[in-house]
Amino acid sequence: MSTPLVGIIMGSDSDLKVMSAAAEILEKFEIPFELTIVSAHRTPHRMIEYAEQAAERGLKVIIAGAGGAAHLPGMVASITTLPVVGVPVKSSNSIDGWDSVLSILQMPAGIPVATVALNGAANAGILAANIVGAFDQAVADKLKAYKDELRDKVLTNVDKIDRLGYKKVLEHKLNMHP
Amino acid sequence: MSTPLVGIIMGSDSDLKVMSAAAEILEKFEIPFELTIVSAHRTPHRMIEYAEQAAERGLKVIIAGAGGAAHLPGMVASITTLPVVGVPVKSSNSIDGWDSVLSILQMPAGIPVATVALNGAANAGILAANIVGAFDQAVADKLKAYKDELRDKVLTNVDKIDRLGYKKVLEHKLNMHP
Amino acid sequence: MSTPLVGIIMGSDSDLKVMSAAAEILEKFEIPFELTIVSAHRTPHRMIEYAEQAAERGLKVIIAGAGGAAHLPGMVASITTLPVVGVPVKSSNSIDGWDSVLSILQMPAGIPVATVALNGAANAGILAANIVGAFDQAVADKLKAYKDELRDKVLTNVDKIDRLGYKKVLEHKLNMHP
Amino acid sequence: MSTPLVGIIMGSDSDLKVMSAAAEILEKFEIPFELTIVSAHRTPHRMIEYAEQAAERGLKVIIAGAGGAAHLPGMVASITTLPVVGVPVKSSNSIDGWDSVLSILQMPAGIPVATVALNGAANAGILAANIVGAFDQAVADKLKAYKDELRDKVLTNVDKIDRLGYKKVLEHKLNMHP
Amino acid sequence: MSTPLVGIIMGSDSDLKVMSAAAEILEKFEIPFELTIVSAHRTPHRMIEYAEQAAERGLKVIIAGAGGAAHLPGMVASITTLPVVGVPVKSSNSIDGWDSVLSILQMPAGIPVATVALNGAANAGILAANIVGAFDQAVADKLKAYKDELRDKVLTNVDKIDRLGYKKVLEHKLNMHP
Amino acid sequence: MSTPLVGIIMGSDSDLKVMSAAAEILEKFEIPFELTIVSAHRTPHRMIEYAEQAAERGLKVIIAGAGGAAHLPGMVASITTLPVVGVPVKSSNSIDGWDSVLSILQMPAGIPVATVALNGAANAGILAANIVGAFDQAVADKLKAYKDELRDKVLTNVDKIDRLGYKKVLEHKLNMHP
Amino acid sequence: MSTPLVGIIMGSDSDLKVMSAAAEILEKFEIPFELTIVSAHRTPHRMIEYAEQAAERGLKVIIAGAGGAAHLPGMVASITTLPVVGVPVKSSNSIDGWDSVLSILQMPAGIPVATVALNGAANAGILAANIVGAFDQAVADKLKAYKDELRDKVLTNVDKIDRLGYKKVLEHKLNMHP
Amino acid sequence: MSTPLVGIIMGSDSDLKVMSAAAEILEKFEIPFELTIVSAHRTPHRMIEYAEQAAERGLKVIIAGAGGAAHLPGMVASITTLPVVGVPVKSSNSIDGWDSVLSILQMPAGIPVATVALNGAANAGILAANIVGAFDQAVADKLKAYKDELRDKVLTNVDKIDRLGYKKVLEHKLNMHP
Repeated sequence: MSTPLVGIIMGSDSDLKVMSAAAEILEKFEIPFELTIVSAHRTPHRMIEYAEQAAERGLKVIIAGAGGAAHLPGMVASITTLPVVGVPVKSSNSIDGWDSVLSILQMPAGIPVATVALNGAANAGILAANIVGAFDQAVADKLKAYKDELRDKVLTNVDKIDRLGYKKVLEHKLNMHP
Repeated sequence: MSTPLVGIIMGSDSDLKVMSAAAEILEKFEIPFELTIVSAHRTPHRMIEYAEQAAERGLKVIIAGAGGAAHLPGMVASITTLPVVGVPVKSSNSIDGWDSVLSILQMPAGIPVATVALNGAANAGILAANIVGAFDQAVADKLKAYKDELRDKVLTNVDKIDRLGYKKVLEHKLNMHP
Repeated sequence: MSTPLVGIIMGSDSDLKVMSAAAEILEKFEIPFELTIVSAHRTPHRMIEYAEQAAERGLKVIIAGAGGAAHLPGMVASITTLPVVGVPVKSSNSIDGWDSVLSILQMPAGIPVATVALNGAANAGILAANIVGAFDQAVADKLKAYKDELRDKVLTNVDKIDRLGYKKVLEHKLNMHP
Repeated sequence: MSTPLVGIIMGSDSDLKVMSAAAEILEKFEIPFELTIVSAHRTPHRMIEYAEQAAERGLKVIIAGAGGAAHLPGMVASITTLPVVGVPVKSSNSIDGWDSVLSILQMPAGIPVATVALNGAANAGILAANIVGAFDQAVADKLKAYKDELRDKVLTNVDKIDRLGYKKVLEHKLNMHP
Repeated sequence: MSTPLVGIIMGSDSDLKVMSAAAEILEKFEIPFELTIVSAHRTPHRMIEYAEQAAERGLKVIIAGAGGAAHLPGMVASITTLPVVGVPVKSSNSIDGWDSVLSILQMPAGIPVATVALNGAANAGILAANIVGAFDQAVADKLKAYKDELRDKVLTNVDKIDRLGYKKVLEHKLNMHP
Repeated sequence: MSTPLVGIIMGSDSDLKVMSAAAEILEKFEIPFELTIVSAHRTPHRMIEYAEQAAERGLKVIIAGAGGAAHLPGMVASITTLPVVGVPVKSSNSIDGWDSVLSILQMPAGIPVATVALNGAANAGILAANIVGAFDQAVADKLKAYKDELRDKVLTNVDKIDRLGYKKVLEHKLNMHP
Repeated sequence: MSTPLVGIIMGSDSDLKVMSAAAEILEKFEIPFELTIVSAHRTPHRMIEYAEQAAERGLKVIIAGAGGAAHLPGMVASITTLPVVGVPVKSSNSIDGWDSVLSILQMPAGIPVATVALNGAANAGILAANIVGAFDQAVADKLKAYKDELRDKVLTNVDKIDRLGYKKVLEHKLNMHP
Repeated sequence: MSTPLVGIIMGSDSDLKVMSAAAEILEKFEIPFELTIVSAHRTPHRMIEYAEQAAERGLKVIIAGAGGAAHLPGMVASITTLPVVGVPVKSSNSIDGWDSVLSILQMPAGIPVATVALNGAANAGILAANIVGAFDQAVADKLKAYKDELRDKVLTNVDKIDRLGYKKVLEHKLNMHP
């Protein structure tokens, strides 16, 4: 595999269920990435080392996910000059996700984190692709095609409702997920 | 001036007091940018045109600021493949800023906005520099120098407190901003 | 069927379970309507076209439902002169519904959205009927009858509790929904 | 003056500073209206009488503003078949406006209130115009012109920034509102 | 049964599961009460009649429970001079209960509602007993005995943990409610 | 003065500006009361003593106001069998008043506090009068007259707007409180 | 067993499932502790006695957990000079845990409670160990070893993902907790 | 001065106005301390060094204050085995203080921060004294005397109100802080 352009890190392997969506998106866009566990609170030295070496190792974007008092994205951003995309993860005992959202989003002047929606790991992957794609036309083209895909899926549903009527479509949905 | 790499847009000229901080940062980093008003709700066609042409005009990043039910960043992101940095602006009659934060942050799967802190326009500028700097070593070097600047300002204050004692420093601060 | 007076749109077919309640109410009031998918973020051009043509196609009210950072109702309202009723949908990964509520409700001066309760699609249908009924006595009469129905259902329950005692009624309820 | 089509009511004359914006909008659109005080909690019988007679007196829309535990819009909606537009007013001792927003917005199934933004009385006026305009082309035309006005104000500001640069415009703004 | 001293009312029979706890407490304290459905929004005239006659019918306290935009307690309080105890009920589609809490609690100056905790119907019953007991020593004595009961239940648990150790007690609890 | 029927207590003399409104209401209704400082956290023994003796000293209602983590109302309620009315006070460093509201309102089963609105000391006074008035027709009559007063003040404002027009009334208001 | 250094108390035995985690941590660190039920609202005198005797009985730290309007930690802190660690417990009918968090955290000046995360009883145990360990090198050494353990668990997971790939690890996780 | 037992650190010298209250308390209790600036985001290496050396330098407690996405207290706690007291500081652009509260409080299992109230630096100082006092009777005695002081201040106010009446006291307060 070619040198990774995106590093996906998360505070704990319990975040993997959420964060794997970022990896899947990058695979879809054929952007090389790496994925590992880096905990701000349990492996602070590893975190600093990771952040310090990221740029020189060829990474262009770091995606960092964490829950609760989520310090990983902001701490990594304090060290690297790369863009850091933060994914607030709604962990158990979270106060409805507000804790991870606010501790990632509300960074002080000087050290931004590009925050996406709660559990929005797929969007973190797309944002990484947006960033890479701004400098790589092939990726930009894939993003364009992805937008067309999203649109076409909507149009297919539009058509289905037009043909069958909303009641049939709803009935079908309820049969599948009662 | 060279072709702008960053487009700073905002929903209203009343956002200028907040959003100008993004421009100042980009000037500091010598990253060419443009700044204009694009309203999702008052100029929807202009918004679509702006978003559709941004990449081909050479922009690499769009910074979009808006308050209240802030649709500009997300709508622009729905059209362009560029990374869109969203700045929630705390407008008058905002419900404590929650409205703009949530309507920028909580984008659906497929269309991310890189959200920064409430009124965090300076950080939006730095994030744009992070993105450009990931592909341009000269900008990365300026970001590195900026981090050193931030650190040195702290160390100067450390030194001041060590020399004068915290009471003198506090007294001085209170005299200046009573 | 006669020309639709109400257009029910939603960002995704996953909103259908919630939004179908609006359709059912309009059927009950025999107000002709149409229902389709229009996504602000995945089909922005379709959205603009829909909003631009709504009035000339004879629609009197648009009901728009969306979740998360819900831009559909406000964006449609930015284009049409028709009243737009917004339904905040509580989607998965929503932050308790606050995101869709605030991104629909807190529209800037000049572009209102008539927001109803979280998941309040039935009420959106009734509000559309209120609007149509303000100019059509037949619909107003049906609304009057509907209010009587609501009242009578309460009075039937009053009577049931009076006859059986609250314990029997509660027991019966608990047996049905343990 | 011709028969009022819109009734603007509010819980207290202390709401007048906020609610007068609805009246000004209706004057602009030349839609006849009336304005008075109706308190759910201090004049419950007057409220019921007002709501019961509104439709037969020729009103097409009721705009109701109230703060705190704001029951006026919902109680009026429980009685009339007309559309009721609710304006949450941020009163002193309000908990950041959440109380009036939620007690107007979260109406139970069967009795909708068309809620607008916190202190959004101007938008309530426009929403009333949207409703009237759906059935009266002259009003619809005025709304169309109003949208053009809003757009043109943005374009004027775009032009000003283009000509003077954002710094001059900002400086000017800061001089006027330091 | 003797004349009821407490009237328990609720907006809908779906509130019965929560509100029956108030009735059970009053039975325990042998305070005569009545229980019925009174909906502010579906039976506004019945509500007014109920509130107007409550005092002359001999009631001393009204307990009113409602969910969502909960207007029943406040509207009843606007009419009667009796103390009204409000029970915020967490209904489906509630925004985490905040809506009913705030629309009951945040009454304007002049019309208080004695609000208890979310779903706190049992406490509403006790508060009614507190009120009656302030003027009736027999009830006050029962309240005193009830406090002793509460204390003794704690002391029994203290003893159990002392004897068995916390692990055994926990194990036992987990066996019963795994 | 006759034996006090209502005890007004507060955690600190800084609460006096808010809490004095309760005293003024009781004076208006000629209900004898006492007012003093009782701090749950600074004078816990005094608090317990106060609560233990309240009923035997002839008090019928205790009004307790406190800010922040407000434990006074709930702790007093844990000891006395009298009804305790809790007034959440919005102190400096409060998190928007939520802290005092929730720590007074959300009492566990068995120990209710009759909570009124944030800073709602006047309403606490009226609630105490409601309680006393349920057992004392003279007080009930005064409450009835007070309701008439509130209504008449509204009607006076109705009349003023009818005679002068809303613009004159607003102008006058703005002149007085610019 | 040696004299307990830490007292773990909780408002109700229903808090035991959460609070036992504090005990397990103290066992792990071999710090002698006691565990019992002390209810602020149901056993106020016991609470005062407990708090008054804690220091002289040799306790160094009190861990107090409670839910809803959680007064136990703050009331105990008002009496003892020992550090009190407060654990907000998310009880049923809690408003998302905000009530217990705020009524423990927002103590007035003079009476601190060392608050940990919602349901964070394990962390309360560790904090007690931090306090004891500041004055007892053996405990400090165990804390150091515990940090190493936490780090090593992360490194094991890092290794597992490196060897197997994230997909295998995720698959395995999903098989275990589908 | 003797070796400091308490280290007071803060993210920025703009936190000094709030954080100096911790220093004043420690001076009052004659507990030796040091005070300096340590920024998690601007001086991450300094932060790690500070945390690593704290215990061996003789510190027993670290008080760390920070605003917004406040990572300093938690990051320091991830490294040291000493108890870390976190002070959420309400900075400008904070979302009402929730950001700093939640990013300090909601630490993951294994790494507690002893969080005090928003801007509660004085309480952080007292908590440090509680900790030191648990192992040093002289400090415990001062804490006992401090509690007496707090109580006596209340009793003085009780007496003042008894002698002068609440109106005089209030008048006096209003004259001093109109």
